[in-house]
Amino acid sequence: MPIKLPEFHFPPLLKKLKRGGPAMIHPKDAGTVIAYTGIGKTSRVLELGCGSGFMTAQLANIVFEVVCYDKREEFLDLAKENLKKLNLINTVFKLKDVNEGIEEKNQDFDLVFADLPEPQKIVDASLDALKKDGFLVGYCLQMEQAKILHLDCEKKFSNVFTIEVTTREYQAKEFGFRPMNFGLVYTAFLVFAQK
Amino acid sequence: MPIKLPEFHFPPLLKKLKRGGPAMIHPKDAGTVIAYTGIGKTSRVLELGCGSGFMTAQLANIVFEVVCYDKREEFLDLAKENLKKLNLINTVFKLKDVNEGIEEKNQDFDLVFADLPEPQKIVDASLDALKKDGFLVGYCLQMEQAKILHLDCEKKFSNVFTIEVTTREYQAKEFGFRPMNFGLVYTAFLVFAQK
Amino acid sequence: MPIKLPEFHFPPLLKKLKRGGPAMIHPKDAGTVIAYTGIGKTSRVLELGCGSGFMTAQLANIVFEVVCYDKREEFLDLAKENLKKLNLINTVFKLKDVNEGIEEKNQDFDLVFADLPEPQKIVDASLDALKKDGFLVGYCLQMEQAKILHLDCEKKFSNVFTIEVTTREYQAKEFGFRPMNFGLVYTAFLVFAQK
Amino acid sequence: MPIKLPEFHFPPLLKKLKRGGPAMIHPKDAGTVIAYTGIGKTSRVLELGCGSGFMTAQLANIVFEVVCYDKREEFLDLAKENLKKLNLINTVFKLKDVNEGIEEKNQDFDLVFADLPEPQKIVDASLDALKKDGFLVGYCLQMEQAKILHLDCEKKFSNVFTIEVTTREYQAKEFGFRPMNFGLVYTAFLVFAQK
Repeated sequence: MPIKLPEFHFPPLLKKLKRGGPAMIHPKDAGTVIAYTGIGKTSRVLELGCGSGFMTAQLANIVFEVVCYDKREEFLDLAKENLKKLNLINTVFKLKDVNEGIEEKNQDFDLVFADLPEPQKIVDASLDALKKDGFLVGYCLQMEQAKILHLDCEKKFSNVFTIEVTTREYQAKEFGFRPMNFGLVYTAFLVFAQK
Repeated sequence: MPIKLPEFHFPPLLKKLKRGGPAMIHPKDAGTVIAYTGIGKTSRVLELGCGSGFMTAQLANIVFEVVCYDKREEFLDLAKENLKKLNLINTVFKLKDVNEGIEEKNQDFDLVFADLPEPQKIVDASLDALKKDGFLVGYCLQMEQAKILHLDCEKKFSNVFTIEVTTREYQAKEFGFRPMNFGLVYTAFLVFAQK
Repeated sequence: MPIKLPEFHFPPLLKKLKRGGPAMIHPKDAGTVIAYTGIGKTSRVLELGCGSGFMTAQLANIVFEVVCYDKREEFLDLAKENLKKLNLINTVFKLKDVNEGIEEKNQDFDLVFADLPEPQKIVDASLDALKKDGFLVGYCLQMEQAKILHLDCEKKFSNVFTIEVTTREYQAKEFGFRPMNFGLVYTAFLVFAQK
Repeated sequence: MPIKLPEFHFPPLLKKLKRGGPAMIHPKDAGTVIAYTGIGKTSRVLELGCGSGFMTAQLANIVFEVVCYDKREEFLDLAKENLKKLNLINTVFKLKDVNEGIEEKNQDFDLVFADLPEPQKIVDASLDALKKDGFLVGYCLQMEQAKILHLDCEKKFSNVFTIEVTTREYQAKEFGFRPMNFGLVYTAFLVFAQK
């Protein structure tokens, strides 16, 4: 028996975007990354694996600059197109496999956000890119990815923690306030590592 | 039997702040407000009931300007002091009971954030303050508050929804990835209403 | 966009039953009622509002006797038919509106389970039916019902608590252990009151 | 800062028991095992790793017979003592390491419940002990255990699923119904495999 997909309540910003193949990063996760790292107007962010640009948009809307990598040309093109629609010109896109190296080595980024199959491979490169006290955040679909990244980060970062964020929607009637029956219960584990 | 309070993982931004009497607004909730409303560098925010300034700091770090009201002088002073510590000068503080009226009536705010005992009382004032498509968000400790605000907003806003956000922390060992046993399971209901 | 209804994983017992109009009581809630009240083989249970008999079946499978009331003849007939299918003959069905009174007044029941629109109306009758230390449990769809029942029980019972139970399903692959994306996130609040 | 341990709301049955070293199995998990397997008054259960007997008590209170194994004499003695207190004489205790073999091979058990460090090692023995349609349930503290057991069961059982159960407690006041702030958010993953 099919049921209706829960309403995701995307902000106006995201409603304008075209969806591509890769899973979108939901506001619940984007908001958590933003708030737990404390990035803001003056921050510089390096995004490794930008997919169709949903996270890029949410970051670029807030920070000074986002530098994005993706090795898949069709997604990078879609991400560029999406950011153009929003007039968020503070983004730089690079078509490259991050496992072959990253150009940003000057320790001047506040956040490295990685949505990659093997995020543990960019731990060292992230240390080169991050300012002191800056964060690497891995968006990990599988427990195995989160575990490897968490353990590898513990060897080189000072503060490592893994969290998961769930939202639940409520319905309100004159007599009847209660959670909705069905919902999105999982998207990803978020591994935070502070330099 | 006492147990240890869960680690909240506040960002460096919040670790510098002094806590006062009112409950702090946690990053999980601040991040959700930011991401679901899509506010960013160019946004203007009106905060009704700023307490000790934890939410003010998280907002001011991201948006163009935050105008804050609180009727309790000691909290307003603490909020001012806290924001000063962070050098976030894009904040204006007003000592006033918002139920007696708000000066901002030019429909040029992107977000009204209300942490008030009776948030339904500022629905009309929020409409005066908000741009088209802007959001009122109520931070409601009790289900009764969320319900009244949700129902009252449905009469005057175009898009109303209530959500709750939960984070869960995981521990990682070589053999042993699992959620931690105890945690923070609730802070508040968030009522969103888009003009 | 429609998605597939989550798999409920009903036990063989429930898979044999015919569903009727009223919402079924899921194993997650039935199991919680059983385990938190400690009912067992020698217990006697009074069920107020048995609907199509899903809870009746789960109780009768475990306890000595279940006495069931429902005022809606078509559901009572379906419940009877369902219990017959399972050969659970330790059930007695009564067609009656419980708000007009209950015959069981000898304080010899271990559990009164109520799935009623106004469960607070049967608080006194439950006290007459229950043994010392026995439990009244209300299955409450709405927060308002749970609140009234909880507060009314606090006046007359010694130990009152309200809980909600959530299950989450995980998928396992060689590389890929993680929660499923969509699921059942809510059925009801359960109010427990111990005499 | 220490906080108070959440109230577990154990039933009268469990309040009488003495706690030993191993973690107790909470009613939320015991109830889920009972309800999702559909065991009842006529069922026979094999418990592998009974610890201090909290799960034994919850099972023996409901089913016809429980056969328990544990290789640690001090826990087996405590479990025996605990069950004696409750006058639950339908239990048999065996001091033995289950990895060295189980005597019950006649396919006449309805449930095998395993709380073991390597539950995957008793998959074959469980098949020998279980009736057709009977269940093996593994109580797994770590995701890694749940994953191995789930995948190994998929090779030999017809219906395998892994769930986790969470309860959340609510507080009710005249104006003020809301979840409590802190709680138990995790105990174990439950792997179900139906023969």
